[in-house]
Amino acid sequence: MRQGLFITFEGIDGCGKSLMAAMTQTWLVENGYEVLATLEPGGSDLGKVFRQMLLDSSYGSVDSHTETLLFMVDRSRHVTDVIRPALANGKIVLCDRYIDSTIAYQGGGRGLDIDELTRLNDFAINGVYPDLTIYLSLPIEQAMQRIPGTKDRLEQENVEFFARVAATYDQLADQYPHRIQRIDASGSPQDVFALVQTAIGTLFKDRGRICHG
Amino acid sequence: MRQGLFITFEGIDGCGKSLMAAMTQTWLVENGYEVLATLEPGGSDLGKVFRQMLLDSSYGSVDSHTETLLFMVDRSRHVTDVIRPALANGKIVLCDRYIDSTIAYQGGGRGLDIDELTRLNDFAINGVYPDLTIYLSLPIEQAMQRIPGTKDRLEQENVEFFARVAATYDQLADQYPHRIQRIDASGSPQDVFALVQTAIGTLFKDRGRICHG
Repeated sequence: MRQGLFITFEGIDGCGKSLMAAMTQTWLVENGYEVLATLEPGGSDLGKVFRQMLLDSSYGSVDSHTETLLFMVDRSRHVTDVIRPALANGKIVLCDRYIDSTIAYQGGGRGLDIDELTRLNDFAINGVYPDLTIYLSLPIEQAMQRIPGTKDRLEQENVEFFARVAATYDQLADQYPHRIQRIDASGSPQDVFALVQTAIGTLFKDRGRICHG
Repeated sequence: MRQGLFITFEGIDGCGKSLMAAMTQTWLVENGYEVLATLEPGGSDLGKVFRQMLLDSSYGSVDSHTETLLFMVDRSRHVTDVIRPALANGKIVLCDRYIDSTIAYQGGGRGLDIDELTRLNDFAINGVYPDLTIYLSLPIEQAMQRIPGTKDRLEQENVEFFARVAATYDQLADQYPHRIQRIDASGSPQDVFALVQTAIGTLFKDRGRICHG
């Protein structure tokens, strides 16, 4: 039985997910909650092995279906060994990227079939859906400025890729309005975090918990 | 484009798949065909790593969904790196276990949802279906006699497990009569192989190839 709460952070690279997850962790710990902060990909022991394997050039290029399935093994193991036990112990689990990243990046970004990816996600997580997903929405140009990189053809390709990823996140937010809270991430960290606090405060209130700002 | 032919061998443990695949390989090579004999799980470089990982006790027990996804990564990589290139080069690919093993063992045996497993298979193989599947059908009792083991409670559990696996293979053979040829595997190796030769001969004739017994 799930006693804790499961909150995921989503958005394109440069949107400030990791900072918001860290600020949320500090805030919740100060309010006396037991928090587990984790991330994907690489949240599980198997995922860490894959990361090393994929960095090892002897494996050559990896097909997009194989890559997606590797993410799914990591996710399934992460749920079984890390997320589900923490929720059963009443912890607040904060996860930097989860199911929506697969839909946005492999689906929107790389063009794999979104229905197929959704079913893979469902199989991998086996019922462990987030209680709340914080989607940090940011114009592509602003996100690109936050990512170190050169001004070349690759960057132009990146702009188009991230535009597809962002559009898919927007579609997901429209599709799952009860789970996904879209937050304007264009302000200062303090401004954005205030919006995150409001979203989490609403969830906590719904579930009979208290959190002070 | 696929120039070769893809033949898989399926059935419960002890049915004689590996021997029939080996005899088929010898026969086809003698007939001048280029043959690639391979197997699952463990046909890909990633699958070999997983095998080592899963034998390493530091990883503890592995959830049935995670295990299934590991098989799927191995299968996807096997298709991309081994099977598809061999078929493109005109080879006859013989594979000891493939998609039907997942349905029979994880679905029938362990009780995972067969529709979900079928969709995972479809994603993993990305269109690379067998031209022919040789299903070696054998009564459970006869198969058990061929497998070394002790006469204890475990064996009784095995009988029930294998009965579910065999029943699922039978259902698959009914469901895909054009792809799956059910062959009585209770006779001598020579008798069974004659039936295998007939099934493969029919496939070759359909595809305008010749093979002498």
